[in-house]
Amino acid sequence: MRPPHTPPTRTLAADLAHAEAGTLVRLQGHVHRRRELKAVTFLLIRDRSGLAQVVLRTEEIPPCGLPPEETAVEVLGVATPSRQAPAGCELTESVVTPLTEPAITPPVELWRPALGAGLPTLLDHAGVTWRHPRQRASWEIAASSLRGFRRTLDADGFTEVQTPKLVASATESGANVFPVDYFGRSAYLAQSPQFYKQQLVGVFERVYEVGPVFRAEPHDTVRHLAEYVSLDVELGFIHDHRDVLAVLRSVLAGMVDAVTELAPGALDLLGVRLPVIPEEIPVIHFADALAQVGAHPDEPDLAPEHERALRAWAWETCGSDVLAVEGYPMAKRPFYTHPQPDDPRWSNSFDLIFRGVELVTGGQRLHRHSDYLRALEARGESPAPYDPYLRTFAHGMPPHGGFAIGLERWVARLVEAGNIREVTLFPRDLHRLTP
Amino acid sequence: MRPPHTPPTRTLAADLAHAEAGTLVRLQGHVHRRRELKAVTFLLIRDRSGLAQVVLRTEEIPPCGLPPEETAVEVLGVATPSRQAPAGCELTESVVTPLTEPAITPPVELWRPALGAGLPTLLDHAGVTWRHPRQRASWEIAASSLRGFRRTLDADGFTEVQTPKLVASATESGANVFPVDYFGRSAYLAQSPQFYKQQLVGVFERVYEVGPVFRAEPHDTVRHLAEYVSLDVELGFIHDHRDVLAVLRSVLAGMVDAVTELAPGALDLLGVRLPVIPEEIPVIHFADALAQVGAHPDEPDLAPEHERALRAWAWETCGSDVLAVEGYPMAKRPFYTHPQPDDPRWSNSFDLIFRGVELVTGGQRLHRHSDYLRALEARGESPAPYDPYLRTFAHGMPPHGGFAIGLERWVARLVEAGNIREVTLFPRDLHRLTP
Repeated sequence: MRPPHTPPTRTLAADLAHAEAGTLVRLQGHVHRRRELKAVTFLLIRDRSGLAQVVLRTEEIPPCGLPPEETAVEVLGVATPSRQAPAGCELTESVVTPLTEPAITPPVELWRPALGAGLPTLLDHAGVTWRHPRQRASWEIAASSLRGFRRTLDADGFTEVQTPKLVASATESGANVFPVDYFGRSAYLAQSPQFYKQQLVGVFERVYEVGPVFRAEPHDTVRHLAEYVSLDVELGFIHDHRDVLAVLRSVLAGMVDAVTELAPGALDLLGVRLPVIPEEIPVIHFADALAQVGAHPDEPDLAPEHERALRAWAWETCGSDVLAVEGYPMAKRPFYTHPQPDDPRWSNSFDLIFRGVELVTGGQRLHRHSDYLRALEARGESPAPYDPYLRTFAHGMPPHGGFAIGLERWVARLVEAGNIREVTLFPRDLHRLTP
Repeated sequence: MRPPHTPPTRTLAADLAHAEAGTLVRLQGHVHRRRELKAVTFLLIRDRSGLAQVVLRTEEIPPCGLPPEETAVEVLGVATPSRQAPAGCELTESVVTPLTEPAITPPVELWRPALGAGLPTLLDHAGVTWRHPRQRASWEIAASSLRGFRRTLDADGFTEVQTPKLVASATESGANVFPVDYFGRSAYLAQSPQFYKQQLVGVFERVYEVGPVFRAEPHDTVRHLAEYVSLDVELGFIHDHRDVLAVLRSVLAGMVDAVTELAPGALDLLGVRLPVIPEEIPVIHFADALAQVGAHPDEPDLAPEHERALRAWAWETCGSDVLAVEGYPMAKRPFYTHPQPDDPRWSNSFDLIFRGVELVTGGQRLHRHSDYLRALEARGESPAPYDPYLRTFAHGMPPHGGFAIGLERWVARLVEAGNIREVTLFPRDLHRLTP
């Protein structure tokens, strides 16, 4: 076959099913698999839409051979119906043109259905191992979740903001921050956009931000990262934290809807069971949760095994994959947390437990300037490092609250990954700063 | 008037126009302006949708007075048609309930049509000064631009990615990086997602990222920031940089469309003249651009005055607000830049000049592993620090390219701000790390 003078425009693998039999088609992608039999060679071409099969008879193979797996190529061939091919159509009478040098063998065989390598290998070679369709699928779920997050909030009067990651003081929790040399001065990486999103409630009333947050926590666990993507929301003119929880519900439902709509192939490939987000998220008070899991009533926090027990309880009693625990002890929450009005030992805050793991932390914040001063004094802290954050409250702020979802945690629980690093593009932790 | 047992749900200021005359309405917002006349007091209430007017007769004012400007309040009142009020409707017979303590006087009078304060005051009190409708309008343009950016690319087969901001080596330009203490080791803040977005072209083929980038540049100019929001795009299977420029064109047109659709009030308030993005962006070669502005043919770069001269030229010859200069000298471009095939002194890269300022840098990148090694060798650089970035190219990469738009520069040029800091929520520069 001789290519025509004007080659056809590119066809994506997924669109090959619609190609008219006998027409000339142009594919572009990576050689996913090269399988040489006696009389024919099969090439599977992988592009952003999926896989397409090219069948070459021995006499069609150039003397220099066919490019090895992972080489980027262009294929001009004739669309030929075939029941064995993906999409029911394959290319025959093809000319395969490499678009780069022959690729060296990848560290893992990307054409195999499962990724047969340990986590360190996957992470060390992330730039290549993410090409595996199963790896890629988990990020497709992440990307669609982001779209669902934003479109739910866009439709509900929220404004996207972008706040600085370089900050002057290690304020929010005091510890576990990364120090930065900022033109010879001390700066820190923001642990969250908390102070900024609150101040911007006074401007836009309802805000969200998607961005990196940094935690220098010396944890080496399957669910912590030193840098992760935080989905932050904050809104004003609420009655209490239950209004915040209602927004969280609609956000989670919107994320599930978006994944269903935009990443059906990824869900299929990974066999993801999507959670049911009930019309109203079941809520249990922290004190009742302790009693429920048989913990001592003075426990200041829920341990991972408690969160797992609550998961079972929520599923058995409400058929829900998510559960909110409200009223966490004030002593364990940050100073800006609003207390429970009828009993200030407890707070108007919540954690959302999703499949046994804390996925979201949220709640109502203080909004009166004098309450902030009192809260800091009660903790023996000076208000000075918190200026000008505090000053904003002196200028009139509505009752408000918000929450933050960890993107990687969300995806890890959706695909039921054993380790959060499996679903993070280039994870950062205590030991890992590359690739 | 006595409030009913069940107060009505909240009405936004912008929806007051649709309220039935005589019905009870609930507003929530900040006191934008309190104007006390002899017989009546006018309160302008500002919420996320706009302004609403409340008229109180002297006998309706509580003994403790009305809350001062900026206090967050709730107002229950009767919808009353009025030709003088914004939206043609005001509230009468109202009860005003403060939602917080009386606000202290803001550092600038937010109710005045113009912000009567110098830049340092605006920036020092950003948490409050952004409440001014003109300030807020410029960020509304930024937020809608982000939506336009993403929706254009979402519709065109791109996948959103989120890549790490903590990196192991100060690679891309070698200098001007912020060092970070990473668990006792040296790390740096990423100057761009360049290396990651390129590698992810091998995975998703077309990717974009919106996120912070960090430049420790000791510039103190009206158009540089130490941290800004970069809108990054990268795509594979291109012919050359002109394919990249075509994507940039559709992204810019999508951003202009989104601003037009989503922020008409902001455009109006600021009197923004939106740019015309022609079907094809006019392109001039770097060598021709130097000749055009009368610069010496050996000049390695365009100076700001050259960019301004080219703006005038593009407007006069093509009626275009944007102009691409292609072919920048290889010597002035990063090592991953693809040379111009017929003359390797020049590059397959471009800058986009928007209203006289370089807004976008983009181009085709090298995609062959051996070309990378040669390019580094030619610059006398060791490939070691670039591993594992380089390794990805050995595993087969398609011809690819991309670009990056600076969000704050885009908005600054749109609203024709004198200083980029005016349109940045909480700017960071050589001297400023707060608020």
